[in-house]
Amino acid sequence: MNWILLPSLMVSFLAFGLAFWLLLWIKRQPQENIRIREIGSYIKQGDRTFLKKEYKMLMWFTLVAGTLILIFLPKFIWEGSIVDNVWMTVSYVFGTIFSAIAGIIGMEVATSANMRTAEAAKKGIKPAFLVGFRGGSVMGMAVVGGSLLGVSLVFFLVGNSEALLGFSFGASSLALFAKAGGGIFTKTADISADLVGKVELGIPEDDPRNPAVIADNVGDNVGDVAGMGADLFDSNVASMSAALVMAISLDGVYGNSKHTTTVFVFAILGLLASMIGILFARMGKKGGPTSALNKSTYITTLLYAALTGLATYLLNINWRIYGAAMIGLVVGVIIGITSDLFTNDRHKPVRTVAEASKSGSALTIISGMSYGFLSVMPSMVGIAVSALGAYLILDPLGPFYGMFGISMAAVGMLSIVGMIISNDAYGPIVDNARGLAEMGNLGHEVLDITDELDSAGNTVKAVTKGFAIGAAGLTVIALLGAFMTEVNMTIVERGLSVPLLTGFDVIDPVVFFGLLVGATVPAVFSALLMLGVGKNAQKMVKEIHRQFDEIEGLKEGKDGIVPEYDKCIEIGTIGALKELIPAGLLAIVITLLVGFIGGVRAIGGFLTGNIITGLLLALFMSNSGGLWDNGKKFIEAGNHGGKGSDAHKAAVVGDTVGDPFKDTAGPSINTQITVVSLVASLMSSLFLLYSLF
Amino acid sequence: MNWILLPSLMVSFLAFGLAFWLLLWIKRQPQENIRIREIGSYIKQGDRTFLKKEYKMLMWFTLVAGTLILIFLPKFIWEGSIVDNVWMTVSYVFGTIFSAIAGIIGMEVATSANMRTAEAAKKGIKPAFLVGFRGGSVMGMAVVGGSLLGVSLVFFLVGNSEALLGFSFGASSLALFAKAGGGIFTKTADISADLVGKVELGIPEDDPRNPAVIADNVGDNVGDVAGMGADLFDSNVASMSAALVMAISLDGVYGNSKHTTTVFVFAILGLLASMIGILFARMGKKGGPTSALNKSTYITTLLYAALTGLATYLLNINWRIYGAAMIGLVVGVIIGITSDLFTNDRHKPVRTVAEASKSGSALTIISGMSYGFLSVMPSMVGIAVSALGAYLILDPLGPFYGMFGISMAAVGMLSIVGMIISNDAYGPIVDNARGLAEMGNLGHEVLDITDELDSAGNTVKAVTKGFAIGAAGLTVIALLGAFMTEVNMTIVERGLSVPLLTGFDVIDPVVFFGLLVGATVPAVFSALLMLGVGKNAQKMVKEIHRQFDEIEGLKEGKDGIVPEYDKCIEIGTIGALKELIPAGLLAIVITLLVGFIGGVRAIGGFLTGNIITGLLLALFMSNSGGLWDNGKKFIEAGNHGGKGSDAHKAAVVGDTVGDPFKDTAGPSINTQITVVSLVASLMSSLFLLYSLF
Repeated sequence: MNWILLPSLMVSFLAFGLAFWLLLWIKRQPQENIRIREIGSYIKQGDRTFLKKEYKMLMWFTLVAGTLILIFLPKFIWEGSIVDNVWMTVSYVFGTIFSAIAGIIGMEVATSANMRTAEAAKKGIKPAFLVGFRGGSVMGMAVVGGSLLGVSLVFFLVGNSEALLGFSFGASSLALFAKAGGGIFTKTADISADLVGKVELGIPEDDPRNPAVIADNVGDNVGDVAGMGADLFDSNVASMSAALVMAISLDGVYGNSKHTTTVFVFAILGLLASMIGILFARMGKKGGPTSALNKSTYITTLLYAALTGLATYLLNINWRIYGAAMIGLVVGVIIGITSDLFTNDRHKPVRTVAEASKSGSALTIISGMSYGFLSVMPSMVGIAVSALGAYLILDPLGPFYGMFGISMAAVGMLSIVGMIISNDAYGPIVDNARGLAEMGNLGHEVLDITDELDSAGNTVKAVTKGFAIGAAGLTVIALLGAFMTEVNMTIVERGLSVPLLTGFDVIDPVVFFGLLVGATVPAVFSALLMLGVGKNAQKMVKEIHRQFDEIEGLKEGKDGIVPEYDKCIEIGTIGALKELIPAGLLAIVITLLVGFIGGVRAIGGFLTGNIITGLLLALFMSNSGGLWDNGKKFIEAGNHGGKGSDAHKAAVVGDTVGDPFKDTAGPSINTQITVVSLVASLMSSLFLLYSLF
Repeated sequence: MNWILLPSLMVSFLAFGLAFWLLLWIKRQPQENIRIREIGSYIKQGDRTFLKKEYKMLMWFTLVAGTLILIFLPKFIWEGSIVDNVWMTVSYVFGTIFSAIAGIIGMEVATSANMRTAEAAKKGIKPAFLVGFRGGSVMGMAVVGGSLLGVSLVFFLVGNSEALLGFSFGASSLALFAKAGGGIFTKTADISADLVGKVELGIPEDDPRNPAVIADNVGDNVGDVAGMGADLFDSNVASMSAALVMAISLDGVYGNSKHTTTVFVFAILGLLASMIGILFARMGKKGGPTSALNKSTYITTLLYAALTGLATYLLNINWRIYGAAMIGLVVGVIIGITSDLFTNDRHKPVRTVAEASKSGSALTIISGMSYGFLSVMPSMVGIAVSALGAYLILDPLGPFYGMFGISMAAVGMLSIVGMIISNDAYGPIVDNARGLAEMGNLGHEVLDITDELDSAGNTVKAVTKGFAIGAAGLTVIALLGAFMTEVNMTIVERGLSVPLLTGFDVIDPVVFFGLLVGATVPAVFSALLMLGVGKNAQKMVKEIHRQFDEIEGLKEGKDGIVPEYDKCIEIGTIGALKELIPAGLLAIVITLLVGFIGGVRAIGGFLTGNIITGLLLALFMSNSGGLWDNGKKFIEAGNHGGKGSDAHKAAVVGDTVGDPFKDTAGPSINTQITVVSLVASLMSSLFLLYSLF
């Protein structure tokens, strides 16, 4: 047993303690407005309906996948030891349960925090900000505490790399469906509410007459809070697992546990730094909510650099490893800043798109997409440079160290993920608060405050998404290395007469075949999700029309006339669950097909192709979506004719197109890449033994 | 001297003869309507203005690039033999001149054929079809005859692979600018004319009152005819060159000229098959123009298969080589058919998008993009399978044969390129004829006929574009092999102490670095082109507004009031030339940067990344653009409310977004990939000697 287990467990529980304290603090905040309470409870109910149905379905998936793992992995149950298979299955199930719990906690607190943020806004922006941010922090702490706890337990109880990958796969597979399902739901509701409400009838956003308005708020929670939490839980677990798999093989080669300890030290300190950053986050005398969010992010970053530096010195860790982690951290910040450049209305891209909107929506789309494509370059070059730098800085230490360097860069980049999640979950909470303030008739001053909080959420979102995608990129590169390690371990263990893999050569036609096929998966996956949104939105629009037509007095807003909110929630839920299955299964099934046809070399190419276009499309979609959103807001702030002008109408089209980009497809691609990488690693020995080529 | 030179030259001249005969035939067709003649001459003048300015600018580029080649390539002039450098420079200049001539011929005949097609439509659809098709065929024969002639001359006069790559680079660099410049011009004019004419004022397409209407027609010629001709000239030359570079190294190894002869035989027979197919193309008693176009394509394909089979038997060529070429041919047809599936209004995608348009333009865009992303899968899997198949079928013959197989598959896929170009150039000719018929008041019956011809052009376009992209994909894969060959030849020749390249391993961090950077280039390149279109369109829209405001009686269509057509043409020309430079240079400069920083391994990754996302984006853009176009036409045919309905307005937005996708960015990406591959091969020795890593 390694001494690091104790601090790992302690810090995880500290994070849970902080989360619990913040939760109690939020619950203590006043909530008096009856109308808001009523609507808030509708939202809470809707959230629970969706999550219950979703998790029920995922339970079946978990059962099937768990059974398959039990029989086949890491070895066929009749070939290897039953104990290994049981542990792996337990780890897998464990991963799914942790992921689900993180989602549920985040969503429960979000629905409590949103009401209280609206209420607090009556007293001013500072208290409202604090409630919103602390609501997000509960989620942040739960996710990061949970991932550290889970990884520690699996690592120290089971202690092999397959079990870690199994745990990670549990987290990923759930995240894939949670993110995709939530993403489809949230944008179905958002688009439908906007199309009929804002565009057709010209009633304000969040108008309680709109039958889809509650569904829209539910969507924010299940998509942006629960889904996003599952997504970052997955990234965090995957980056730690990839680093640990490498570390185990290094420790094995060099016969100690130095490298695994190092990984835990860096993860623990990241969580500690985030906790301190969260406690100090509040709006100062000067500066708005955006600078408050950014300030605490930068404090956390600096703190992390200092703490890990100190630990490196005290624990006698090689400074090169520290260097690799710092490369990840710094490049993460740079990627965030360049995302900001493309999505913040202070810079040229958003302004140009807003300007182009004056000539109609086609030019809004063309210019926004163009900037979206441009925006991929700085981030991808950043990922490329950090991967290369991290590899080269550790390469002199010996064989296999280069890849370990990349995984440490990913750990470094994700170190402050607790902070990132807090910022990210803050967004939907204040967005919901805005809706509640509108529906509760809290007046213009309160709306202005919630608007400002909301806009800060949108701005910061671009930065956090850049971070998340960058980290996912590094993680999957490291997982590519993990895959190769797994294959070679199988070859050695089974004494197979095939040569050890030294890499994946693109001149090898089998690798190139995999490369081309893998490259199409993120495109097809995101297309299926977006088509799902489009299909469901048409159904929901029809339902909204029906209610406005059939329920007397609804359009006029007669007192006591309430639309049938639950009908829209039901359409959204059923539709989302129906649409996410083909998309999620597709990614997994194609991986299996390529593996069993082309073998491990084809899978090497497949993963590479998948990573490359996955990153490209994820960045493109996130950034262009954010850009359109802010372009619309820029016009709404009174530019180019302001609200209701032709430019505004065109910008609304851009925003609507951007919605499934940035909140459904874009962020789901992250998870899709991770899932595919993990499936490949888990199946590596089967692909090796039973492929056509 | 190889005996194959003689038949090569003969068949090239035969192609020129056929082109000349067809040209004379077209000139003999009547053209009586004075109004059409007048407008036709406006168009011709506009075409010449654009091409003159464009080629003048490209002359400077060629001069600079030629001088650089003279000094540095294939070796530094002070190191190697001056003669080699002179030959290479001559080959390069030769490539640019051939490409320019092909463009000019195509455009001149297009402007003659469009008037006569309109005139012939008075007599019925069959004669009109024949004029339009034969106009396209002149271009087809000029391009394919020119490429065979050029490659033969360079190969037999200079006889080394560098000179071939130089010739190919000349063709590519010109194509890059011609395609991008023409593409920007054509869509600037198209979008501007539509935005003010159709959308704002509600006047018909091609209404002579619209000041941008001539520019729009000029755009069809310079973008779709001249640009596309340059593009396919480039692809054809590149595929032959890549195959010949491989063949030379195989002949070198095995000490004969069998493989180079084989390449020429397959190219010659492709041209012959296309000539026969062209002569037999006409509308039968049954079936419309679409089936006439398709029929002649399939006849050519079958003829090619038979002729090459016969030659393989008679000349005792290895049947495996025949097999590789056939794989390319068959997969080309399959890619074409799947493109049709996504863009033809008889199938689900177009219908779904048209249906979605009823709920507003945002859903038109979302669903169209989604199908565009879906559509990449069958084509890319097709390319993957054909590359793998062609490699494996030739691999048993010995080392280096696998890559030769891939290049032969590309030759096979491009074999019927003469037919493809004829079909492709037919499109803009009949599109222009439709415009002329409208402007010349030829009446509704003639308009109906030209509409039907136009729609056939659009349908067939999707198939030919799929073909072109597939072939470009295989060619650049082969060029990746050519790059490696060039590097290894340098290592051997110079006796360098570095190991020979055996491939590009994605686990190598330098390769992975190149991979990530290369993947961003097609995205950034297409973004710059589309931003160029957006920027210019805003300028042109302003100019159109100015004319409608300032020229009295123009809006009302008073007799004798003519808009200032040339002003719009000037804006389009200057804007296009200004915007294409950064995009074109970007691709080249980044290649040089990556090469001099990361060296040849980084370039291997860079080319691979570039190929993968390049194919993905080119297919996505071509197919979604075609889909939106046909979705709009489907609604205009009377579905979902027909012209003027809300669904139609939404579909017009989709079509406008799709325009720069399918006619500017998408097809330019092809050329961009080829140029980058050739730059890499040409610079290989410099990268090897002077890179940081």
